[in-house]
Amino acid sequence: MAKSIPMVSRALLASLRQVVGEDGVVSDPGALTVYECDAYTLEKWVPSAVVLPRSTEETAAVVRLLSDAGLPFLPRGAGTNLSGGTYARDGAVMIALTRMNRILSVDARNRRAVVQAGVVNLHLTRRTQPLGLHYAPDPSSQSSCTIGGNVAENSGGPHTLKYGVTTNHVLAIEVVLPDGRIVHLGRSTEDPPGYDLRGLFIGSEGTFGLVTTVTVRLTPLPQAARTLLAIYDDVADATRTVSTITARGILPAALEMMDALIIESVEKAFHMGFPLDAAAILIIELDGLAPGLDAQAERVMAICREHHARDVRLARDEAERAGLWQARKKAIGAVGRITPSFCTQDGVIPRSRLPQVLAEIAAIGTRYGLRVANVFHAGDGNLHPILLFDEREPEQVQRVMNASHDILKACVDAGGTLTGEHGIGIEKIAMMPLLFSPVDLEVMGRLRQVFNPRGLCNPGKVLPDGHEPVPGVRKVQGI
Amino acid sequence: MAKSIPMVSRALLASLRQVVGEDGVVSDPGALTVYECDAYTLEKWVPSAVVLPRSTEETAAVVRLLSDAGLPFLPRGAGTNLSGGTYARDGAVMIALTRMNRILSVDARNRRAVVQAGVVNLHLTRRTQPLGLHYAPDPSSQSSCTIGGNVAENSGGPHTLKYGVTTNHVLAIEVVLPDGRIVHLGRSTEDPPGYDLRGLFIGSEGTFGLVTTVTVRLTPLPQAARTLLAIYDDVADATRTVSTITARGILPAALEMMDALIIESVEKAFHMGFPLDAAAILIIELDGLAPGLDAQAERVMAICREHHARDVRLARDEAERAGLWQARKKAIGAVGRITPSFCTQDGVIPRSRLPQVLAEIAAIGTRYGLRVANVFHAGDGNLHPILLFDEREPEQVQRVMNASHDILKACVDAGGTLTGEHGIGIEKIAMMPLLFSPVDLEVMGRLRQVFNPRGLCNPGKVLPDGHEPVPGVRKVQGI
Repeated sequence: MAKSIPMVSRALLASLRQVVGEDGVVSDPGALTVYECDAYTLEKWVPSAVVLPRSTEETAAVVRLLSDAGLPFLPRGAGTNLSGGTYARDGAVMIALTRMNRILSVDARNRRAVVQAGVVNLHLTRRTQPLGLHYAPDPSSQSSCTIGGNVAENSGGPHTLKYGVTTNHVLAIEVVLPDGRIVHLGRSTEDPPGYDLRGLFIGSEGTFGLVTTVTVRLTPLPQAARTLLAIYDDVADATRTVSTITARGILPAALEMMDALIIESVEKAFHMGFPLDAAAILIIELDGLAPGLDAQAERVMAICREHHARDVRLARDEAERAGLWQARKKAIGAVGRITPSFCTQDGVIPRSRLPQVLAEIAAIGTRYGLRVANVFHAGDGNLHPILLFDEREPEQVQRVMNASHDILKACVDAGGTLTGEHGIGIEKIAMMPLLFSPVDLEVMGRLRQVFNPRGLCNPGKVLPDGHEPVPGVRKVQGI
Repeated sequence: MAKSIPMVSRALLASLRQVVGEDGVVSDPGALTVYECDAYTLEKWVPSAVVLPRSTEETAAVVRLLSDAGLPFLPRGAGTNLSGGTYARDGAVMIALTRMNRILSVDARNRRAVVQAGVVNLHLTRRTQPLGLHYAPDPSSQSSCTIGGNVAENSGGPHTLKYGVTTNHVLAIEVVLPDGRIVHLGRSTEDPPGYDLRGLFIGSEGTFGLVTTVTVRLTPLPQAARTLLAIYDDVADATRTVSTITARGILPAALEMMDALIIESVEKAFHMGFPLDAAAILIIELDGLAPGLDAQAERVMAICREHHARDVRLARDEAERAGLWQARKKAIGAVGRITPSFCTQDGVIPRSRLPQVLAEIAAIGTRYGLRVANVFHAGDGNLHPILLFDEREPEQVQRVMNASHDILKACVDAGGTLTGEHGIGIEKIAMMPLLFSPVDLEVMGRLRQVFNPRGLCNPGKVLPDGHEPVPGVRKVQGI
């Protein structure tokens, strides 16, 4: 199913190499297949070329050359995108920012850092931890995903519940517009005047231009943390615990849920000692000033027991806490232990609708004869139902597609949305009209035109405009 | 200096009255002078008419009538704007949203409320306090300003330091576009997909359309709070205290500073018992879980003493705490006790530059022979230098103008911005090029065109486009 439309002339390749050096342009067909997909793996689109600049100026020069040649192009970070946002549709030229991996400055006093777009999320936190600071948004892919990619997707993570998503932690960005001009959006102080172009750019999935440098806010490490594990015989008890905790005015740093199929997967992968007969587990993390925490942990444990938790444990030490987070962050990958293929969905609902929508998802699974595993950011109402199947069976693929559609529709019908953090990409374009009116979509299209008038930058993403993915082709993750 | 260009025909007035009722249209010239200015008081612009709708549908019908007639119009809340953002330039028709003052729903479980745009900020907090919740952004004008106006200005307040500005607390808005169409931006769950039109609209100062309904996030009331007063003989000691508190990883709920002239004003107005010989006072509020707070207050008091505070006191009870906040929130008005006229500026700088920029502001005051009072959100680096003068003396007005320009330039040169929370309005349009490049301004202009292609909605605000205020006319507040 690989498609590639070679378009890059020898002369252009030579010009690109003059900008980024001999080793900065990939044009060998074999080497290009490395870039044929991201973490959304069913479709394949091979780029015509991959260019790897080292600076904003090189990036701008590359974009000018491509723009002058009228060629489509797109940015790429680590390629951990789950919705095909970094697919090189129609063989677009890929501008990979992975060599732009320098942390340019850390200003502990004003709690800021300036980084190149290709810096890996976790590397920034590792660098600032000795100063008592960290970069708060922590996607499960944080050991490989880049800050630039986080900006494009407005990424979240387990600690989003308390600390907010990427847009809450990015003060300013340097952007190469699709015509090669460089602009600076936002400001390194709070709440600058004028229209919030910074905020508009964040989450635009690479359709407005390429972010090259990011000024981020650094957050003090919490003085202390308590991580709890609560075990349930009934999923509804676990979800009711979630909404009760928040309804009682407690804001945990993270509040994550895993169901029986996930527990089974994680046990096979990590041998954490989770009970295989449990219906659900909650991981609840509290952080803040040390003196108040134990009392708060007691309150939370009481709420868990009130909702029939059969066991509630406090992680004894940092090693046990790290182990719990390891299990949670690698849980989706661990599902490969129990099924040949799986498809991870991503929807958001109001917290209070969790019991109802989880029941609907279970019913949808039963209706289509599919096993559905659930691991998700329960405190945010951000669901990740994982559909288990075998991609060698076309009829199963079709059932997964239909079930995915029904699950997302159930989220939207409950007052929620199509995606919490994985983006629209190419995967969910066709569902955008479920959430947005024709006027909304028209305004979005006109906004994109302001930044990207010729449509050369990351074409065929986010908005339905005749570039929707072929019906029947949906996200299917193999092993 | 009043200017008015009457443009509204009798037939149109009759049509408007059909939409909003007989008492919903003001067209009597005497009655219209009430709307000739906002809290920026030097210029006067009388609107051709004022229309007061009661619902989104009425607002949309009014906008369609005005748009069809090709007339300019603008929204107005309580008119507390400090930068002339609600001036009816060229006699534009004013659409006052003050009758849209209903709280439509409060959902404690999901911590949200839906309000009409004309709801007064403090009324929402009063309504939700019995549920243990509040609306966090608290401008000093919160007893009169409206949520719709807060959205237009992306308003902050003393507690912005910990809790963030309006955009961090607004999930979704209903907007009447300048052509009368109704759109819904954002979603009542976290982090919806697509471009962040909600975030783009917030802070656009009424130049993209009229916000009619707002879905806000409600925040749990802190379990406990400690409010400290620290008294200094030297301003630099106070500012160094501010940056040390934050550098040590403490995030107060609020961190406010008042200098000697403000202390004198506040004493004359409120008789708080502040020492008249002090150089500066800090008001520091800590909030959160009760058990940790006293220890944190001790740490903060130690930092104050380390920086030579001559006295540090803890508010003994809720009454004393409320008194301190009353003094702080009414401090700018109290300046009227010591000067015939004053001009409040609004700039932002990185916290670490506070000692240096405050010294520069003092030097600017000396250079122009003007007394400068300072009361501000120190923790945010958001300065409010207040220039004291007599507006009956044109030569003094000129000096105030020049000094204001130099102060804002000093903020920008220190890596800051032109305004923290008062907006650009008409006051600071001419200074926008200090902060934004021609490309930035061009992109902003094109964004405005997406929403407001004919420029009918709130013309002559925010962007320099030939509508800049007449040089020499700047904000001067009389008594």
